[in-house]
Amino acid sequence: MDSAEAIAAAAALDDDLGRRIEFIYELDRLKKVMRQTLLVDGSRNENSAEHSWHLAMIAIVMAPHAKGDIDLAKVMRILLVHDIVEIDAGDVDIYDYEARKKKEAEEVEAADRIFGLLPEPESTELREAWDEYEARETAEAKFAYACDRLQPFLLNLAIGGRSWTRRGVTADEVKAINGRMADGLDGIWDYAEALIDRAVTEGTIEPGRR
Amino acid sequence: MDSAEAIAAAAALDDDLGRRIEFIYELDRLKKVMRQTLLVDGSRNENSAEHSWHLAMIAIVMAPHAKGDIDLAKVMRILLVHDIVEIDAGDVDIYDYEARKKKEAEEVEAADRIFGLLPEPESTELREAWDEYEARETAEAKFAYACDRLQPFLLNLAIGGRSWTRRGVTADEVKAINGRMADGLDGIWDYAEALIDRAVTEGTIEPGRR
Repeated sequence: MDSAEAIAAAAALDDDLGRRIEFIYELDRLKKVMRQTLLVDGSRNENSAEHSWHLAMIAIVMAPHAKGDIDLAKVMRILLVHDIVEIDAGDVDIYDYEARKKKEAEEVEAADRIFGLLPEPESTELREAWDEYEARETAEAKFAYACDRLQPFLLNLAIGGRSWTRRGVTADEVKAINGRMADGLDGIWDYAEALIDRAVTEGTIEPGRR
Repeated sequence: MDSAEAIAAAAALDDDLGRRIEFIYELDRLKKVMRQTLLVDGSRNENSAEHSWHLAMIAIVMAPHAKGDIDLAKVMRILLVHDIVEIDAGDVDIYDYEARKKKEAEEVEAADRIFGLLPEPESTELREAWDEYEARETAEAKFAYACDRLQPFLLNLAIGGRSWTRRGVTADEVKAINGRMADGLDGIWDYAEALIDRAVTEGTIEPGRR
């Protein structure tokens, strides 16, 4: 049996269980979507599946710093699904402002297809979690987004900002993008900003806008 | 700034926030722990961080098949932390019965050290989630364990059982280990068993015990 046959065996069930198994196989592809961020030891790029795990863990340990009242279980669900659309749409560099705009329609199509693989109510529930994340309106979505800024920020610091400098991203840009973590996390942006300033002083990152 | 300096900057905060950030850095190491299982496309081995993400997602989509009443948020938390001890203890082959016995004490030490990095109450909460998983007594732990059997089973099928056959694991063993998924998941073991029998018929996996 190969992967096509294994997936066909699930499809042949022709019921909800088969659809759930097909979705589980589909999810595996997120492990092949590579991000701009490197691991803390700089050995390789991070993929979106392990990134999503890291974020869900960060939500648990940073929950005491969340702004407003949050339902942590909801945040975990949001973070587990927030990058699944990248299976079709790929990861987009957050500092590539034009590419991000273009990606939006593609990501909605991806959400339609991928969450549509599941039976109800999970299909709608997971789609709603993704929509909630994208809208950034609830306390949970803002906190989830803050975790999604904090994680690559910490990883980038650990490799001397290499993934910023090789893209020509300046300290001003790093602050503009990551400063938004203050919308969802209390008591951490001052610390983060001081580290960016230190990186500028040490000459590892350029201060001004490109 | 390198990774040692980034972690030192967190430690220099000398407060709960610093300890949370140190823990976040520590978690990154789980992305380097490699498992026996290959990805669905057979391209490489899976790591324990992306595996944990996959399991948390499987818990969400298989929840309607859970045996007994489960608190899904608790299951997600259990699955997110269940392999963190591997940062120190490494992954152990589930079919290497002797190695698994030896690993137990090492994993407890790892849990003491790693969860001990966090401030309270998260330190105790995450340790309790890991202890609960290891004890396999609650409905949540049994369901989590069932997901942890289902996932590598599905992945192995997709690569023609290659990760079983190269270790000399037989169909009897695959059934003995994975049959336990029936303790936490309803209505799936019959399907799984039929696929093992099909793999035996196709000659891709040996029937008897080695």
